[in-house]
Amino acid sequence: MPGLSQERLIAVETAILSKNDSHAAGNRRVLKALGVYAVNLVSSPGSGKTALLCRTIRELGTTPLAVIEGDQQTSNDADRIRETGARAIQINTGKGCHLDAHMVGHAMDDLPLAPDSLLFIENVGNLVCPAAFDLGEDAKVAILSVTEGEDKPLKYPDMFTAARLALVNKTDLAPHCDVSLEAYEANLKRVNPLIEVLFVSARTGEGMEAWLAWLAARRAEKRLARAS
Amino acid sequence: MPGLSQERLIAVETAILSKNDSHAAGNRRVLKALGVYAVNLVSSPGSGKTALLCRTIRELGTTPLAVIEGDQQTSNDADRIRETGARAIQINTGKGCHLDAHMVGHAMDDLPLAPDSLLFIENVGNLVCPAAFDLGEDAKVAILSVTEGEDKPLKYPDMFTAARLALVNKTDLAPHCDVSLEAYEANLKRVNPLIEVLFVSARTGEGMEAWLAWLAARRAEKRLARAS
Repeated sequence: MPGLSQERLIAVETAILSKNDSHAAGNRRVLKALGVYAVNLVSSPGSGKTALLCRTIRELGTTPLAVIEGDQQTSNDADRIRETGARAIQINTGKGCHLDAHMVGHAMDDLPLAPDSLLFIENVGNLVCPAAFDLGEDAKVAILSVTEGEDKPLKYPDMFTAARLALVNKTDLAPHCDVSLEAYEANLKRVNPLIEVLFVSARTGEGMEAWLAWLAARRAEKRLARAS
Repeated sequence: MPGLSQERLIAVETAILSKNDSHAAGNRRVLKALGVYAVNLVSSPGSGKTALLCRTIRELGTTPLAVIEGDQQTSNDADRIRETGARAIQINTGKGCHLDAHMVGHAMDDLPLAPDSLLFIENVGNLVCPAAFDLGEDAKVAILSVTEGEDKPLKYPDMFTAARLALVNKTDLAPHCDVSLEAYEANLKRVNPLIEVLFVSARTGEGMEAWLAWLAARRAEKRLARAS
């Protein structure tokens, strides 16, 4: 089949990623100039990203922030975020399996972003493709539901290698599943020895304090970097 | 960027899918010749596909069958399947986010397949990309965990449109989650009015009888088609 050699395919993939990287660099410059700390939330579908984000926003109180929501279809998630009072833009990717830096750049411009604020980017639920696409964010935060099984970091290593922090969510369901929280942590560290791990429940509020403290520390670092 | 126009990208995607389709047609001919009914199991990571498949194999008893396992990394799933006594081949996709018909064709040849048997293909956990890739299977069966939330069919419509049957799994956890099984069914039918829906728990065995009856009916149809 013409134009479909392995070499040609790799060349196209490389070109796509290189184009994405140049948009990501642009996003990163804007975030740095404004002192905005940007988190790219990545996970399987159904890990509880949106519920966790809604609770996070409510507990953050007056901290300035904005949200970019990615989904194949529907604006359900942006609607849920707006109910908290936060500004949110929904991106629908259609057939697409991940957000890219170009889409996110447009959404950043449209929001717009406030200086020294937080930006949450909720990616399309997918443990594979979003790992390869830099959006210009400061950190990827991977969310895992305890119901998914402890083997997921081993089976989808790219995502957990790319993430700085893993939030193991829905800990309230752990007693009803045959899972070990220690095994989640051990498998996460096995694929990424540097990954930080926090256990949370968006439902009961367990672990929210540590997660909010993590965000506050990152935001303070970013503001200092802007001032220096 | 040269070679990266939208038109060029669509041309490459179309060529990839067209090449896949010709491999899928080849797989379909082999399956038809042998009277093998092939199920492509698709879902998010952590929906419980492998646990459900292990229980299915045990309950199928002496029914001849084979399994092709897809994961980015590890042979954990094929190992779990082999513990049931079934033949299984693991495909590791590396960076890849889905199985394609070419990989599956090679695995089919290597197994090999017995006449009038069942073939289960457990795809990479991903609710987006596997929807677009025909493997030559008779049916896509989509598995959803009740923990994922009732909105998933609306947010990932391509997969549930492509599926003939949805298995809503982990029903034993439903009382511990804020979910409605009726809403799962309603949203599945909203994106695909023809989809069949069964509720199962690989843990308690709830609903297994209906799922095994579904498989037996499909296998009987396929054998009849071979005989005619």
